[in-house]
Amino acid sequence: MTIKPMPAFEPPYVMAVFSSVRTAEDSGYPETLARMNELVREIPGFLGYDSARTPGGLGITVGYFRDHDALAQWRQDLEHQAAMEQGRAEWYESYTLHVATVERSRGFERNG
Amino acid sequence: MTIKPMPAFEPPYVMAVFSSVRTAEDSGYPETLARMNELVREIPGFLGYDSARTPGGLGITVGYFRDHDALAQWRQDLEHQAAMEQGRAEWYESYTLHVATVERSRGFERNG
Repeated sequence: MTIKPMPAFEPPYVMAVFSSVRTAEDSGYPETLARMNELVREIPGFLGYDSARTPGGLGITVGYFRDHDALAQWRQDLEHQAAMEQGRAEWYESYTLHVATVERSRGFERNG
Repeated sequence: MTIKPMPAFEPPYVMAVFSSVRTAEDSGYPETLARMNELVREIPGFLGYDSARTPGGLGITVGYFRDHDALAQWRQDLEHQAAMEQGRAEWYESYTLHVATVERSRGFERNG
């Protein structure tokens, strides 16, 4: 399967950029990540996400949502809230979250 | 030096998310990247950027700008335009660009 970024959705939509540096603590992290991946897909209005991490460096996850209501529903999910709390307690050295409305977007695909 | 994500700037500000998959073609890429890094810092209203790339996978670069004028100035830079053209011709398999206005943001730092 070819890896591809999420496409350019029809604006306006909402984008949450989570830029983070991890601690060395990995206990429970992959399992929680997999569970969050599963949970977020149940949110109506969740469009998808892109994620990248430089080994030993910065990680960036970008979540795309149809509107602010969809993102609010994700933010208010209790299992997600518990995961965020555990993230601050154990898994993240530092992070920044930017919540934004996308006004325009475009995609490029070779031979696409 | 500790790696850190860019901080939560004072909203509103503008964010350009560039999510990409590279080709195997590396010729000229690191030099152009270094030059763009240098050039973008000359734009008044450029706030900073975060970047991450999963080896063999997705790369995400997020540029932060004070306003749309600052981003427009960067988009219109002739050297940057030539680099984008070469990117489509040689370096990128696929990419998506999302341009957005950030409405809220927050940061976390361990012992911060």
